[in-house]
Amino acid sequence: MSKPRAKKIKLLLLDVDGVMTDGKIFLIPTGGDVQIEVKGFNAHDGAAFSLARLGGLKTGIITKRVSETVRLRARDLKIEHVYQGVGDKLSAFREILAKENLKPEEAAYVGDDIIDLPVMRHCGLAFAVANAREDVKDEAHVITDHCGGEGAVRDAVEYILKAQESLTRCVDAYISDQTPSEDKHQ
Amino acid sequence: MSKPRAKKIKLLLLDVDGVMTDGKIFLIPTGGDVQIEVKGFNAHDGAAFSLARLGGLKTGIITKRVSETVRLRARDLKIEHVYQGVGDKLSAFREILAKENLKPEEAAYVGDDIIDLPVMRHCGLAFAVANAREDVKDEAHVITDHCGGEGAVRDAVEYILKAQESLTRCVDAYISDQTPSEDKHQ
Amino acid sequence: MSKPRAKKIKLLLLDVDGVMTDGKIFLIPTGGDVQIEVKGFNAHDGAAFSLARLGGLKTGIITKRVSETVRLRARDLKIEHVYQGVGDKLSAFREILAKENLKPEEAAYVGDDIIDLPVMRHCGLAFAVANAREDVKDEAHVITDHCGGEGAVRDAVEYILKAQESLTRCVDAYISDQTPSEDKHQ
Amino acid sequence: MSKPRAKKIKLLLLDVDGVMTDGKIFLIPTGGDVQIEVKGFNAHDGAAFSLARLGGLKTGIITKRVSETVRLRARDLKIEHVYQGVGDKLSAFREILAKENLKPEEAAYVGDDIIDLPVMRHCGLAFAVANAREDVKDEAHVITDHCGGEGAVRDAVEYILKAQESLTRCVDAYISDQTPSEDKHQ
Repeated sequence: MSKPRAKKIKLLLLDVDGVMTDGKIFLIPTGGDVQIEVKGFNAHDGAAFSLARLGGLKTGIITKRVSETVRLRARDLKIEHVYQGVGDKLSAFREILAKENLKPEEAAYVGDDIIDLPVMRHCGLAFAVANAREDVKDEAHVITDHCGGEGAVRDAVEYILKAQESLTRCVDAYISDQTPSEDKHQ
Repeated sequence: MSKPRAKKIKLLLLDVDGVMTDGKIFLIPTGGDVQIEVKGFNAHDGAAFSLARLGGLKTGIITKRVSETVRLRARDLKIEHVYQGVGDKLSAFREILAKENLKPEEAAYVGDDIIDLPVMRHCGLAFAVANAREDVKDEAHVITDHCGGEGAVRDAVEYILKAQESLTRCVDAYISDQTPSEDKHQ
Repeated sequence: MSKPRAKKIKLLLLDVDGVMTDGKIFLIPTGGDVQIEVKGFNAHDGAAFSLARLGGLKTGIITKRVSETVRLRARDLKIEHVYQGVGDKLSAFREILAKENLKPEEAAYVGDDIIDLPVMRHCGLAFAVANAREDVKDEAHVITDHCGGEGAVRDAVEYILKAQESLTRCVDAYISDQTPSEDKHQ
Repeated sequence: MSKPRAKKIKLLLLDVDGVMTDGKIFLIPTGGDVQIEVKGFNAHDGAAFSLARLGGLKTGIITKRVSETVRLRARDLKIEHVYQGVGDKLSAFREILAKENLKPEEAAYVGDDIIDLPVMRHCGLAFAVANAREDVKDEAHVITDHCGGEGAVRDAVEYILKAQESLTRCVDAYISDQTPSEDKHQ
């Protein structure tokens, strides 16, 4: 039972490929050795970041790859901590904790592959997405209902807010927001 | 039983991401802070708009995001009401009703996420797509057989036309149209 | 039992969206009112056209939409008859039959939507792909194992060649071809 | 039981379309007769190449098509042998064996279509991906759990390393690598 773990969470950190996407990396050649990298993000996850914000959760991403498409998506979603090009995810995790002045048990992480295991082993609440590699699922506290890129991030946010008994309030606040959206790219 | 509701429908309104698409938002960086947003629309839904027109249904989309790809698709499909960048979907809904001089019970809406709930609660016939978030399905009159981007809009159109006993006539009219297509981008 | 029908086939005609693809139409805005249309074709279907050629089958496509991506794919696959922008598929069907000097029962067609029904009703062997709309499946002689864009065209070609007892020979000829490929874009 | 076969493997060769991808080939027209070919690669497979390297396995690809997107992906993944535009895969297979001074039983191959059969019949360990054509599965020693483009290459690498009793060591080495990643595009 991971509800007690979820109650303490103040920060939600995420891997990108396979978590915010289905793991597919589309490479568009541009002539020469440069390539444009394209990923497909999910609209349900976009709303997840709004709900997280309404519930007082900070968010961040830690990913090994470096791509412009992720920088743009993170900007649109107003993600607080964006760490790209990170092989050593645990150090990045600790750096973010220090910045936010939080303890490991106050941070959750959503992963899908073995590179995510060090953070998953140290954070307070470890999610594996439905399409995570088997040995990653084995070490997760919670497995999301959806696959990466199909709403897994939303699942994680709702799981935490539900445990904190703030989900209904956050959803109501979100849908009763009658002002025209300022951030139209979520 | 939602057939009586469907009989009254004269206007079909739709969310875009997750309804006319599978919810995937592909971001293509262009260098700098501009991005091209790409979505995948379904051919079966293209025919849905032709069938709706033959059945005398007006159509419209109400979406929070703003993208060129949606503007182009809406133009090709000859969608009457195109509202992009709308956080407050209920006001847009009421604005369209006023323009068309229709009552709420004469409008149907297809949604997949909580931002769609206010309109779903006020319209005459609320569809949730097969891949809608669970709490959205809970408030729908009808759940489509297909997921968004795989024919969910077509399901909604056929459901309404069937209830109105005009589906067979519309299909026959559509397939017996022997003139070369004027709108080749549907 | 549709094997006797398959024995007579000399020409295989195909719809494009939903048959050679999964039905997804990706629109890339280019600024202004022009759009680039992108579709995803399947490698298994690429081999299907080689097998069809080895088995003596002519091939063609009849599609309502018009796109460059289809023209390029058809060229790479050396498809004999390419009809784009065709609302009246039955007339195109008859035109191709006349050109090839064939009878309707010597042509097969693979479709997924109601616009395909007139040709499916007149050809000798009508395939519906696994993801076809239900009323299209109802009128097909054969439903392919795979969905469009996942090998449905290959299923159709193999079905015909198997009935004609030439599949094994064609596969052997295809895989024993020891010369470097001339057409590398199949 | 294919474990004894897996123990001898020193080289892993792969088809591309349908194996490193889901088989979808996206064609982006550029005006005129040139097209940009785009494929979607999977992040789980990216880690597979790192694990293979840690386990002492050489890697290579043999594909009939020619595309820039494959060249770029192969470069990022540091794949040793890259053969594009190859109709006669068996000759390429033998050429790579000669270069590496290996026997056929020391090479594994992952395929999905009939063009892969000659190599699959001659190599020491033949994998078919979950989405391979049926007649290809019939001739494989092992069928991967995942489809191409969803982690099938990773499945193959893990299968081999597990049989060689080096998987746990390789995974530990991979995740304990505390230095910032040098190759950020895997």
